[in-house]
Amino acid sequence: MAYVTWSLKTLERFCSDVFETFGFSKEDSDRISDVLLTADLYGIESHGMQRMVRYHKGIEKGQIHLDAKPEVLFETPVSAVVDGHSGMGQVISAFAMEKAIEKAKASGVGIVSVRNSNHYGIAGYYAQMASRQGLMGFSCTNSEAIMVPTFARQAMLGSNPIAIAAPADPYPFFFDASTTVVTRGKLEMYNKMGKPLPDGWALDETGAPCTEAPRVLSNIVGKNGGGIMPLGGSTETLGSHKGYGWGMVAELFSSILSLGVTSNECCTFPDKTGICHGFAAIDPAIFGDADAIKGHFSDYLQALRDAPKAEGAERIYTHGEKEVAAAADRRENGVPVNDGTMVELLDLCNYLKLDFSSYFPGYEPPAEFAGFAGNY
Amino acid sequence: MAYVTWSLKTLERFCSDVFETFGFSKEDSDRISDVLLTADLYGIESHGMQRMVRYHKGIEKGQIHLDAKPEVLFETPVSAVVDGHSGMGQVISAFAMEKAIEKAKASGVGIVSVRNSNHYGIAGYYAQMASRQGLMGFSCTNSEAIMVPTFARQAMLGSNPIAIAAPADPYPFFFDASTTVVTRGKLEMYNKMGKPLPDGWALDETGAPCTEAPRVLSNIVGKNGGGIMPLGGSTETLGSHKGYGWGMVAELFSSILSLGVTSNECCTFPDKTGICHGFAAIDPAIFGDADAIKGHFSDYLQALRDAPKAEGAERIYTHGEKEVAAAADRRENGVPVNDGTMVELLDLCNYLKLDFSSYFPGYEPPAEFAGFAGNY
Repeated sequence: MAYVTWSLKTLERFCSDVFETFGFSKEDSDRISDVLLTADLYGIESHGMQRMVRYHKGIEKGQIHLDAKPEVLFETPVSAVVDGHSGMGQVISAFAMEKAIEKAKASGVGIVSVRNSNHYGIAGYYAQMASRQGLMGFSCTNSEAIMVPTFARQAMLGSNPIAIAAPADPYPFFFDASTTVVTRGKLEMYNKMGKPLPDGWALDETGAPCTEAPRVLSNIVGKNGGGIMPLGGSTETLGSHKGYGWGMVAELFSSILSLGVTSNECCTFPDKTGICHGFAAIDPAIFGDADAIKGHFSDYLQALRDAPKAEGAERIYTHGEKEVAAAADRRENGVPVNDGTMVELLDLCNYLKLDFSSYFPGYEPPAEFAGFAGNY
Repeated sequence: MAYVTWSLKTLERFCSDVFETFGFSKEDSDRISDVLLTADLYGIESHGMQRMVRYHKGIEKGQIHLDAKPEVLFETPVSAVVDGHSGMGQVISAFAMEKAIEKAKASGVGIVSVRNSNHYGIAGYYAQMASRQGLMGFSCTNSEAIMVPTFARQAMLGSNPIAIAAPADPYPFFFDASTTVVTRGKLEMYNKMGKPLPDGWALDETGAPCTEAPRVLSNIVGKNGGGIMPLGGSTETLGSHKGYGWGMVAELFSSILSLGVTSNECCTFPDKTGICHGFAAIDPAIFGDADAIKGHFSDYLQALRDAPKAEGAERIYTHGEKEVAAAADRRENGVPVNDGTMVELLDLCNYLKLDFSSYFPGYEPPAEFAGFAGNY
């Protein structure tokens, strides 16, 4: 698939305008745009602008409620439970993480569990809201069931990512990972390329390992069984029960503490997805000298980067380094957007009566996409 | 290897007596014994009585200080930093977890980071101290470097287990897992059996995958490079960076927040190991109705157990179920101890001038162990 490159400014203006036109406030539209474009800056294309079409569908179906306001149901100096009332995930999540940060600044720790939200973009965005303010940040979410527990043949957990961020020099620690071995987006990529899936990714409807992307994907859509393996594969030999356990931890902080919808029932309702999140912030100063802690962590991260490399490997990364490098490059040289997504954005402009050419002058979809216009 | 079975009571009396004879108080000896025998009850033999010989060595070498008392270096209503002064890991850890629990009961959350400790047994023991009191519990530790980061050829992190426990009916949720794909004990088991290691477990001194147990183990002992893969293997295809990331999270809560020794330097000192731990307790009541939360979690766990099984699978487990079943069986029918460990216990009795036959009447080591007596 071919890519076309646009400046971050252009994409920001476009994204914000789209969400304002849907009916969100300027502030909320900027937040949604920032979450999506942070993913694109970091090279996590699956969670960037290409998600706009899904949010559009969610709004049209009535699963995302434009006028919902997050409500605090219960609160202590170190905790809160928020009901998102099926609003936009990014708006609810920024509200909840800000609450966690505020509590961490006042009490040392803040933990916020959220129910009745929607897809919130990359988990790491919210963890990083904390680390940018010198705090440790934690974020997790459940989602439509896609992970098949060890010894099962039906998906019962979502991709359930967990992100943890902490201050360090010269890069913050930024760990953001699904608790499945891969996300559904990776399967879709292999499907588009017509390539067999790597061993250790997916299961068929009987619970047996399967490398046929079309079969696995159609089973997922039809809820016929099968799905994606937990981190660690499908048997205990490589630690399947561990990825499954981490998925449960995401569920615990999101759907369980908030008394919300667990992944096995997410996205089965006509008027909501029910998706739940968990957030936390911790002030390192509650352990003494926050600068000394940051320095100690930075030294260890440097020792990791400086460790002897495997034969043939050029570099050892610490978590978040790739994202920092990608973002620096894309701020300088522009953000690549693939033609498939560009066609979706064109459609979105037609639907919202926005002038596509005022954002993306001169762009013409390749001939292969002629049939798709208006049909996403 | 053959096993001989003893009642839990016998093993408790023996373990406590051994640690009292070393010079620990009755209370501390009972705690150490309880941690070790909980592992044996749960079927986690590698962390049970067979560890006694290693603790003996640690005391003899001067890495475990018999008379050390844990000291609180820094404290807030939600946190503490503890210096273990190289005492026995189980004693320091129970002290630290009790502090976390006390803070969680008063303030909703308690997080305690510990430096200068020693091997603490199974991570889950401490998480469960919290869940037994209706709280959510978290425990992690670093350890001698054994995990090779993605793209490296030298171990830089420990097996770095993380355990999380939470109240539920009829079984609590009890997730206790190393962040490596397996622990060193599993490699030693394959070595003893003369079997090749499964693919996806270990790396040789160049950082390439390796299934030769003797080679990997001698490299680990000689610190020649190589070691065990993170959960997710050695490449990003199966999520190696994710296991590596979870290992970093264990490091963050143990060695980083306490300004302690990171895994890459643990066990390199003559007079201490430097091992660090992290503990936390959270009162679910800070999210509203703790009983409703427990009920909601129990329902979800039941739904997981009731999900359709993979073809050929008999049962889907939730985390902690196997341990509950093993403990019930062993309390009823006795705890199996292998002959190798029995010979070590006999040696220990000779060293401490304890009457082995008063604990284990009639036990004779098999002929194959004749040469080992006195030489462990």
